[in-house]
Amino acid sequence: MDAISVIRAKRDRGELTDPQIDWVIDAYTRGEVADEQMSALAMAILLNGMTAREISRWTDAMIRSGERMDFSPLGVPTADKHSTGGVGDKITLPLAPLVAACGAAVPQLSGRGLGHTGGTLDKLESIPGWRALLSNEEMLAVLRSAGAVICAAGDGLAPADKKLYALRDVTGTVEAIPLIASSIMSKKIAEGTGALVLDVKVGSGAFMKNLDDARELARTMVGLGRSAGVATVALLTDMSTPLGLTAGNALEVRESVEVLAGGGPADVVELTLALAREMLAAAGVHGKDPADALRDGSAMDHWRRMITAQGGDPDAPLPVAREQHVVPAPATGVLTALDAYAVGVTAWRLGAGRARKEDPVQAGAGVELHAKPGDTVTAGQPLLTLHTDTPERLPYALEALEGAVTVAPAGTAFTPAPIVLDRIG
Amino acid sequence: MDAISVIRAKRDRGELTDPQIDWVIDAYTRGEVADEQMSALAMAILLNGMTAREISRWTDAMIRSGERMDFSPLGVPTADKHSTGGVGDKITLPLAPLVAACGAAVPQLSGRGLGHTGGTLDKLESIPGWRALLSNEEMLAVLRSAGAVICAAGDGLAPADKKLYALRDVTGTVEAIPLIASSIMSKKIAEGTGALVLDVKVGSGAFMKNLDDARELARTMVGLGRSAGVATVALLTDMSTPLGLTAGNALEVRESVEVLAGGGPADVVELTLALAREMLAAAGVHGKDPADALRDGSAMDHWRRMITAQGGDPDAPLPVAREQHVVPAPATGVLTALDAYAVGVTAWRLGAGRARKEDPVQAGAGVELHAKPGDTVTAGQPLLTLHTDTPERLPYALEALEGAVTVAPAGTAFTPAPIVLDRIG
Repeated sequence: MDAISVIRAKRDRGELTDPQIDWVIDAYTRGEVADEQMSALAMAILLNGMTAREISRWTDAMIRSGERMDFSPLGVPTADKHSTGGVGDKITLPLAPLVAACGAAVPQLSGRGLGHTGGTLDKLESIPGWRALLSNEEMLAVLRSAGAVICAAGDGLAPADKKLYALRDVTGTVEAIPLIASSIMSKKIAEGTGALVLDVKVGSGAFMKNLDDARELARTMVGLGRSAGVATVALLTDMSTPLGLTAGNALEVRESVEVLAGGGPADVVELTLALAREMLAAAGVHGKDPADALRDGSAMDHWRRMITAQGGDPDAPLPVAREQHVVPAPATGVLTALDAYAVGVTAWRLGAGRARKEDPVQAGAGVELHAKPGDTVTAGQPLLTLHTDTPERLPYALEALEGAVTVAPAGTAFTPAPIVLDRIG
Repeated sequence: MDAISVIRAKRDRGELTDPQIDWVIDAYTRGEVADEQMSALAMAILLNGMTAREISRWTDAMIRSGERMDFSPLGVPTADKHSTGGVGDKITLPLAPLVAACGAAVPQLSGRGLGHTGGTLDKLESIPGWRALLSNEEMLAVLRSAGAVICAAGDGLAPADKKLYALRDVTGTVEAIPLIASSIMSKKIAEGTGALVLDVKVGSGAFMKNLDDARELARTMVGLGRSAGVATVALLTDMSTPLGLTAGNALEVRESVEVLAGGGPADVVELTLALAREMLAAAGVHGKDPADALRDGSAMDHWRRMITAQGGDPDAPLPVAREQHVVPAPATGVLTALDAYAVGVTAWRLGAGRARKEDPVQAGAGVELHAKPGDTVTAGQPLLTLHTDTPERLPYALEALEGAVTVAPAGTAFTPAPIVLDRIG
C-alpha cells in the first residue's frame, strides 16, 4: 500500500477499498503519509466525492486512530448535541444543563471559533476561572456532580481528525461533505454518547448556504451515527439572521443565563427547547418537560453546578468591552433582513473571533442587536451596538455591515423564517 | 492574495487570473505557499483543467522564478530535443552529437530516470569519468569545443518547476497535461534554445497511452514554445514496444555508439534521423544530411569530443552486469507484441532504474532484446537476456514480463506500427 496509489484511485473516480482507507488514515496519523499527500487526496475527495460505504469506513478509521470514551459507569442515558456553527449560536450553553436537569447526562465536547462563527469554549472562557481542559477523570466527575460538562476534546480522541481538520483549513478542502460529516461524527462517536442531535444550520451565516446541501450533510451524518449504534437525529435550522440578540463571547453568556432564568429571546428559547426534546427522546428519557426545567430553576441550578465544577464563578461579573458604538436604523419601516454572515464577520473583526488558531479572543467584543427581522424600526433608533477593546478596528468592522440591513416600508407584510426548517431522523 | 483563495478559485472551476498565477508560483518558490497547499492546487488543476492562457502564464511564471540562459555568444543556431520518456529511448545520445556535426549547437539539459523509464544522465554516467554536473561556464565551453553538451539542469533554472515536479511525483498529480506541458516548456524556454523538437511518446511504455492525449499535450507544448519565440515542432512516436534492442544504462550507451558508427537497430536510426532533420530545419540549418554525418564519422567525432570534454573516456570498456539470464521464446511463429511497459518495469527491477530519487542505479543492469515485433521466432530460442548485479531480484523482474510477449502462428500477416505516428508543427 502506498499513498500515491490511494490518491490515484480517488483522483480517477474510483471507490477506495476498506484496506486503502484504513491504511491511509493510520499512516497519516503516524506521519508516514505526508501532509502534501493527504491534501491532494482531500482535494480529490472534495471534487470526486465518496460513496456512503467509503464515508462510513473513513469515519470508522478516524475513530480507531484514537481512544473511545465510555460513560456507561454513570448508569444514566447520555445525549449530546452538535451544531455545524452559526452566528449567535450560544444554544449549547443553556441546552446542556437543561437536558441534565431533565435526567440525561450531557458529555458535550466543544470547539473554539475560527472564522466568522464563535466557539462554545471561547464563550465560556469569558466566565472568570472557568477551565475548558479537563482530564477524562475530571470530565466524569463533573458529569456526576452536575449532569452536564462542556469541555475541549482531549488529544486522544480521533487524532487523525484533529490533524486532517487543521490541514483542510489551510488547503481549501474544508467544503467537502464526506470530510465534514466524517470529521464531526468520528469525534462524536469516539466520545461515546448514546444519543446525538445534530443542529445543521442553513443560510448566509452557516457553512451550508442552501437546504439541499444541508439535507445531504444531515442525512450522511445521521446514517453514520445510526450505523455506529448512536441514536442520531438532525434538525435543519435557519441561520439567515443571528440567533438571539447577541454575537460575541461574554454577550452570549449573558443571554444564555437569561434563558436559564426563564427569559431570553424567543428564538433562542424555541431552539433550545426543540433540541432538548430531541435529545431526551433520542436518549429514551421521558420524565420532565424541558420548558418546566427553565421555569422551575432546575436548569439554572445545573448550570451553576457545571460552571462551578469547572472552576468558574457563576456570580462573577462578566467582562465588558472598553468601547461601544451604536449603529442606527437607516430608515423607518419593517426590518426584513439582518444578515447573519455580515453580523458574524463584524463580531469577528471587533475581536470576538480569531484569524488564526493561536490568536486570543476578546471576551467582551461582539454585536448586540436591538431588533430582529419582522420588527418595526424608526430611522435613527439604535439598531446594533458594537462592543470592542480595539476601537481602531471599528471602521474595518463597520465595512462588513454594508448591505446587511434591509428595511421595507412600514406596513409591509413580512413573516420571518421558522427556526426549525426540517427534521432528518 | 492568499493560497486558499487561489486553491478555491481553481477548485470551483474558475480561471486563475494572471496576478493569482504569478503570486502562487513566486510564493511557492519562496516557501510562503506550503507544499500541502500547492499539492491541493495541483490536484484541482489536474481535475478541473486550465485554459491555454492559464497554462501560458503558469509557464511564464515558472521561467521567471529563476535565471534564463543565453547561448547567443556562440554565434551558432541552437536546437534542443525533449522526449516525454520511453523504454529504451537512448535517442538523445546519438542525436546531440549528430545535430552538432550538421552545424547546430545542441545545449541538451537532461534528467534522471524515475519509474520504468530510464534517464539520459544515468545512461551517460555508465561511461567511466563522465560528469553530468556542469557550471554554466563549463557548459558553454563544452558547447564551443564539441558542438553539443548533455548535462543536468542547474539549480538556477526554473526552481519553481524543480520544486513542483518533486511534489507532483509524490502526490499523484503527475498526470495533468497543463502541469506536464508547463514543466517541460519552462525548463526548455529558460534554457534559451532557439529551436526545440518534442518527441511525444504514445503507447504502453509512455506516459501518454493514447494518441488523443499525446496530441493534446503536443499541441499545448508547441503553442507554449512558439509564443515564447522558440521554433517548436512535435513528433508523436510509437512507444508500444521498446526502442532498439536494449533498455538499461550501459547497454543503451553501447547501442548508441553502434548508431554513431553507422550501424545499430533500424528503428533507432530512423527516429534519430527524423528528429535530427526536424531540429536542423527548426534551427534554420541546411548544410548537411544527418545520414551522411552517421556514415562519414563526423557524428562519432562529435560524440567523442563531447564525452571527453565532460571528463569521460569514450574508449573505456563499459560496465557489464554480474549475472545474465536468458528468457526463451515461448512458441514458434511471428512475434506480434513485446510490451514496452513490461520491459521497462523489468529493466527497472533488475536495477537499471530507481524507486526513489536518492537510489543509485546499476550501470550494467537491463534487458537485451533478440527479436522485435514482426520478427519470426522459434520456441526456445533466446528472446531476451536480462542483466543484473542483484540476481536475487530476478524472480521479481521476471514477474513483470508476464503477458508481455505475444507470438502468433507462423505465417500470420503482421505489420509493426510506424515509428513516427504524427507531426504537430
